[in-house]
Amino acid sequence: MNIAVLGTGMVGDMIASKLISLGHSVMMGSRTVNNEKALAWCGKSGANASQGTFAEAAQFGLVIFNCTKGMNTIDALRLAGSDNLKNKILIDISNPLDFSKGMPPTLSIVNDNSLGEEIQKLFPETKVVKTLNTLNCQLMVNPKLLNDGDHTIFMSGNSSEAKTDVSLLLQSFGWKAENIIDLGDITTARGTEQLLPVWIRLYGTFGNAMFQFKIVK
Amino acid sequence: MNIAVLGTGMVGDMIASKLISLGHSVMMGSRTVNNEKALAWCGKSGANASQGTFAEAAQFGLVIFNCTKGMNTIDALRLAGSDNLKNKILIDISNPLDFSKGMPPTLSIVNDNSLGEEIQKLFPETKVVKTLNTLNCQLMVNPKLLNDGDHTIFMSGNSSEAKTDVSLLLQSFGWKAENIIDLGDITTARGTEQLLPVWIRLYGTFGNAMFQFKIVK
Repeated sequence: MNIAVLGTGMVGDMIASKLISLGHSVMMGSRTVNNEKALAWCGKSGANASQGTFAEAAQFGLVIFNCTKGMNTIDALRLAGSDNLKNKILIDISNPLDFSKGMPPTLSIVNDNSLGEEIQKLFPETKVVKTLNTLNCQLMVNPKLLNDGDHTIFMSGNSSEAKTDVSLLLQSFGWKAENIIDLGDITTARGTEQLLPVWIRLYGTFGNAMFQFKIVK
Repeated sequence: MNIAVLGTGMVGDMIASKLISLGHSVMMGSRTVNNEKALAWCGKSGANASQGTFAEAAQFGLVIFNCTKGMNTIDALRLAGSDNLKNKILIDISNPLDFSKGMPPTLSIVNDNSLGEEIQKLFPETKVVKTLNTLNCQLMVNPKLLNDGDHTIFMSGNSSEAKTDVSLLLQSFGWKAENIIDLGDITTARGTEQLLPVWIRLYGTFGNAMFQFKIVK
């Protein structure tokens, strides 16, 4: 399948590379064409990898991963363009982490709203699914690196059909179906975005990012 | 040991009863003396159980559990009185959940502050330890009801000595030492209080409260 990955950072690189390894055709999108990191990623990723602007990538993808930094996400998606996002699944991995006031970061959208909801409001014809925003990117694409893959991934979104598709994609990444929790509509993204403050403190406590939430019941 | 439990709701009753079962002397505190629920609790709890005002209970206890609702906590602790709380360990179980705008609740203090921190600021000579605020009260006092007790409890507080004491108390409740995570100072209460939004959504998804966070690493 043609998939767009918006964002050229560590998360974008990791997701895009995993998708290539699964046989998808992937275009990495960034603010400008021929972004240095996007070109470097293409160079190591073979014939199914390409790069372009946010708009070109969004147009190319049937599914779009938002791997931009949360503070840049709305700008990036506006550049991608609502026509290019229309009727498509947008998998939102970002968190609205604001580092401008120092460490630890705060959330720029919080409590009675979330970045996931803001995206859905701005692009009502796009099927936004928030997921993969609560863990280190190595674990996103290789959950078996930890506890034999036995930990929890959350999903939020208004479209059940889109969540079913995303669940299958997550399973292709190595996630066990029983560890994928559908929390409900996109307003539940408030819950998962607010996991970040404790995640950041745990990262400080453990000194590494190889840990994860598991819901036991 | 003499322990105060502030609050007569389900959490207060559960904590106070557990402490009695462990041999402690417990005074349940409420806004008024001879509160109906406090009297009912005393009636079922034997000779080591007593009740009184928030101030009487706080004076009695060497350790004080705050089991009041988050929105009432500051008022309750003011009534308890800073002199009665001075140099003591205050175990804060509350969450600043605001139900006034409907469901799901929001947090009245959030993001760059927390209720735990507010309490610490108001009572600088009290050793505030935030813990047990991320799970159902049956699991607080009987963690083995779920997954053989193998799930995570967090602690936040400025005093390492107080956290050591609280850790021992938690272990007497059935918590395994390896499942008690000290997140750091009281500002880390921001993280655990912000777990509530996803907890509430999980409660909605599962239809019951017998679940818990476990950090796998």
